Amino acid sequence: MVKLIALYRTPPDPQAFDRAYFETHLPLLRTVPGLRRTSLSRFTRTVMGESFHLMAEMTFEDLDSLKAGMRSEAMAAAGKNLEGFASGLVTLMFAEEVPESL
Amino acid sequence: MVKLIALYRTPPDPQAFDRAYFETHLPLLRTVPGLRRTSLSRFTRTVMGESFHLMAEMTFEDLDSLKAGMRSEAMAAAGKNLEGFASGLVTLMFAEEVPESL
Repeated sequence: MVKLIALYRTPPDPQAFDRAYFETHLPLLRTVPGLRRTSLSRFTRTVMGESFHLMAEMTFEDLDSLKAGMRSEAMAAAGKNLEGFASGLVTLMFAEEVPESL
Repeated sequence: MVKLIALYRTPPDPQAFDRAYFETHLPLLRTVPGLRRTSLSRFTRTVMGESFHLMAEMTFEDLDSLKAGMRSEAMAAAGKNLEGFASGLVTLMFAEEVPESL
């Protein structure tokens, strides 16, 4: 399994961000081909370092599925949607689970 | 379930970082009371935004368990250990899973 991980910095208006994210972005994400699962985490406190607001972990079967998902029209629409409310806030990365995990 | 999430920026020497993390830090983390699971993700590509190297997601039963874990001697030892190889690289946050996750 591989993941596409999106980290969102704390937006100026978190409530407006959440409305846009959950009501417009998430429905678009759900249509991305090959996406197995999306797990969302809300950051509630920063102990050390920078402040983030939200993390989305999108799981795909393998790297080929992730790459195909990235090239899809659904992902292009989701990316375009993000520009409307999360411009400059997002860090987007590929990741793989480490087998040494407990 | 609540999580303690540690994000590590890309270190100057990733191999030395990994050796220190997996051989000295992880064994200390494993002794933190209340820690149910640690899931590690290695970032393999940055599509947009800043570059991170590794993420640790440490799951606890609830916020009280997480806070107790944070105050433990084991966590103090793990934190002191981090200073030796990850100073300035780490962002540490509390997070909760969003029920709207797919």
